[in-house]
Amino acid sequence: MRAILIQTDFGPDHLSASAMVGVCRGVCPELPIYEATHMIRQFDVLNASDALMYNLPFWKETVFVSVVDPGVGTRRRSCAARLRDGNFIVTPDNGTLTYVKQRWGIEEVREIDETVNRFKSTRDIYVFHGRDVYAYCAARLASGVISFEEVGPAYPVEDIVEAPYTVPEIGPEGFLTGMVVEASEHFGLVNSNIPFSWLAQKGIRYGTPVDVEILHKEHAAFSGTLAVERSFGYVAPHDALVMQSEIGTVSLGENLGNFVTRYNLGFGRAWTIRLRKSEGVPADGGAG
Amino acid sequence: MRAILIQTDFGPDHLSASAMVGVCRGVCPELPIYEATHMIRQFDVLNASDALMYNLPFWKETVFVSVVDPGVGTRRRSCAARLRDGNFIVTPDNGTLTYVKQRWGIEEVREIDETVNRFKSTRDIYVFHGRDVYAYCAARLASGVISFEEVGPAYPVEDIVEAPYTVPEIGPEGFLTGMVVEASEHFGLVNSNIPFSWLAQKGIRYGTPVDVEILHKEHAAFSGTLAVERSFGYVAPHDALVMQSEIGTVSLGENLGNFVTRYNLGFGRAWTIRLRKSEGVPADGGAG
Amino acid sequence: MRAILIQTDFGPDHLSASAMVGVCRGVCPELPIYEATHMIRQFDVLNASDALMYNLPFWKETVFVSVVDPGVGTRRRSCAARLRDGNFIVTPDNGTLTYVKQRWGIEEVREIDETVNRFKSTRDIYVFHGRDVYAYCAARLASGVISFEEVGPAYPVEDIVEAPYTVPEIGPEGFLTGMVVEASEHFGLVNSNIPFSWLAQKGIRYGTPVDVEILHKEHAAFSGTLAVERSFGYVAPHDALVMQSEIGTVSLGENLGNFVTRYNLGFGRAWTIRLRKSEGVPADGGAG
Repeated sequence: MRAILIQTDFGPDHLSASAMVGVCRGVCPELPIYEATHMIRQFDVLNASDALMYNLPFWKETVFVSVVDPGVGTRRRSCAARLRDGNFIVTPDNGTLTYVKQRWGIEEVREIDETVNRFKSTRDIYVFHGRDVYAYCAARLASGVISFEEVGPAYPVEDIVEAPYTVPEIGPEGFLTGMVVEASEHFGLVNSNIPFSWLAQKGIRYGTPVDVEILHKEHAAFSGTLAVERSFGYVAPHDALVMQSEIGTVSLGENLGNFVTRYNLGFGRAWTIRLRKSEGVPADGGAG
Repeated sequence: MRAILIQTDFGPDHLSASAMVGVCRGVCPELPIYEATHMIRQFDVLNASDALMYNLPFWKETVFVSVVDPGVGTRRRSCAARLRDGNFIVTPDNGTLTYVKQRWGIEEVREIDETVNRFKSTRDIYVFHGRDVYAYCAARLASGVISFEEVGPAYPVEDIVEAPYTVPEIGPEGFLTGMVVEASEHFGLVNSNIPFSWLAQKGIRYGTPVDVEILHKEHAAFSGTLAVERSFGYVAPHDALVMQSEIGTVSLGENLGNFVTRYNLGFGRAWTIRLRKSEGVPADGGAG
Repeated sequence: MRAILIQTDFGPDHLSASAMVGVCRGVCPELPIYEATHMIRQFDVLNASDALMYNLPFWKETVFVSVVDPGVGTRRRSCAARLRDGNFIVTPDNGTLTYVKQRWGIEEVREIDETVNRFKSTRDIYVFHGRDVYAYCAARLASGVISFEEVGPAYPVEDIVEAPYTVPEIGPEGFLTGMVVEASEHFGLVNSNIPFSWLAQKGIRYGTPVDVEILHKEHAAFSGTLAVERSFGYVAPHDALVMQSEIGTVSLGENLGNFVTRYNLGFGRAWTIRLRKSEGVPADGGAG
């Protein structure tokens, strides 16, 4: 039997999610059911895609359920995707699978047949497919009540909806550029979609100073020269640094401080980051 | 074995609730234990009752534990109720069972005998019956350590405490009236206790414009004419609508917007809603 | 098999914690995994120690995982401690074990051998030992993949790091003094580390008036005369009281009110509390 791992944008109150859990348990009482987060940014399918990428390497034998669904009750495909590692994702096909398709690997995708894989007693309700379609279908798949083929008809993987985003690249003048994909006020960390391994390609090692700019549209919200280090504790308290995030991307933070609130940073398509090996000496940055 | 489903008003930090989970597990390590929410409005027994109604249709073979207990440590009955569907609820008898008694069906209720069904090592502590009485007793019941009869002495179902609230009704001039039972800032949805099926009785179908008023005491916080639709996506972005909530009641929201913060709405006994079929054309509402 | 109980300072979004859960489940899919709280005050190892003490009496056959780790990626020992009750705690050895060592009893402690008990695929990542070291090692220990001896080399229990704090004491002039260890805005409760049983030693019983002062550094944030009662409901609405907390310590609160926000109280080493049997009559306190 597979586990169920639920992520949503329902916010700090998980009462709605518990109805999803109840539906899953109703399909099979032995099903192991976990909740990843309900704090995905509202309606933000790229943030949902990032959350999936965050957990995919660490969950085996799992059916992921993602419910970020601004179009609930209207036309958008509900689907189950079979990944190259054997896991499944059940989600509205609305951009939530963007990064999984591009960077992890989807082998097959099927549209959920709601005549079969929909909770029956709520058939006249249109506002909570998370409970009535996604949780129900995922539980049937995870517990083996249905096979993947019985989810519904297959459609081409290339038809899966991709949301637009800023693709990371190694640009002119030695700049690595990418999107700010997370800026958490809790620990004050900024995360990008630039692979940390690219730094080595540009001759940047631990200890190397780099010039960094974080841009909100055209405006520089931060610009400065920072050291690249293994972790917070390698720089003095309240000093900022560039480091490798827990998922292998370029991230920024401040030792025992909050880099995000200090520079009032956000995330998403309007926020980009660029950095390159510095010619000068590392020094604390200032708002641009 | 039954599952345990816990709901409380303990807030975003679930450390206290985890002591309840530990006590349950101490009774029987195999017991499946779930947490529905800890965000019930503080001391609000009607909000607790609503949360129970929200989950009851979706959880089978379950002992619900509800801890909204402003009178902890003083006289109020602690009880276990057996529902018509075979589930149980363990709770202070302080109004938390109001809607369950009136709309779902309670077949039998017993007062918890604390000489038997109370965690022993904390017997001199009076402030956390959620852990020491409700979780402990519920775990014994769910795991079969005790039968329902062994919870304690039965008392008449009609003696279960009911909290006062605004009963929904079909009033004069074609108005449907009811109480605002939830106004969530997260998705900006307003929920009422008016059954959505009543709209059809008044000739209101999907697409029909309705006149809506939301009142805080005597003051109209919102009044306007809205369309009734299946879900958010059926109206233009930032347009409001009337729709069927996920539990079959009349609710209001705004597509990709926040109806609750826009009109500064709240919920509970001070907030009422009334609506009827409109004579005019649908148009966006304004604060009254 | 033992259960895993996770506590962290990761904040209201538990996405990071879910990667820890995934790692645990990857070690053994049958492992029962629970999350106590993610709301420990950031970087506050004493608050982490208190949270452990809060749950220790109520969890049996458990491996606790505590991740409050301001020094992640730098030198500080990662350890597993075997407690006198047979439970284990896996944590950075950074002060998190302070109260457990002093008041609960640690029988043996071992440094985690990261060449064996570290998740392999993330070996070049330095910022998330909660996932890569603590969760992984704890899951191996809880599921029996490794014995306690296989965690790594033992070191003397007396070498476990203890964080400084205000030790409770019975001082001159009959004053009981201690530290404010929690001041929760949710229910407005203040908790101290003064054992409630000390009150009886000073002739203070239920109903006895006591003089109380709460000090922030040298400044009295609250001073007043309060009654000692079993629970909130024993005093009039909005009256304050002294009572026994759910873990047997002296705590203060207000019936249906919020003692913490009313006096703007905090917790930690800068906050102390002192109280003694009053000569006068109980009366509501005022800010000093």
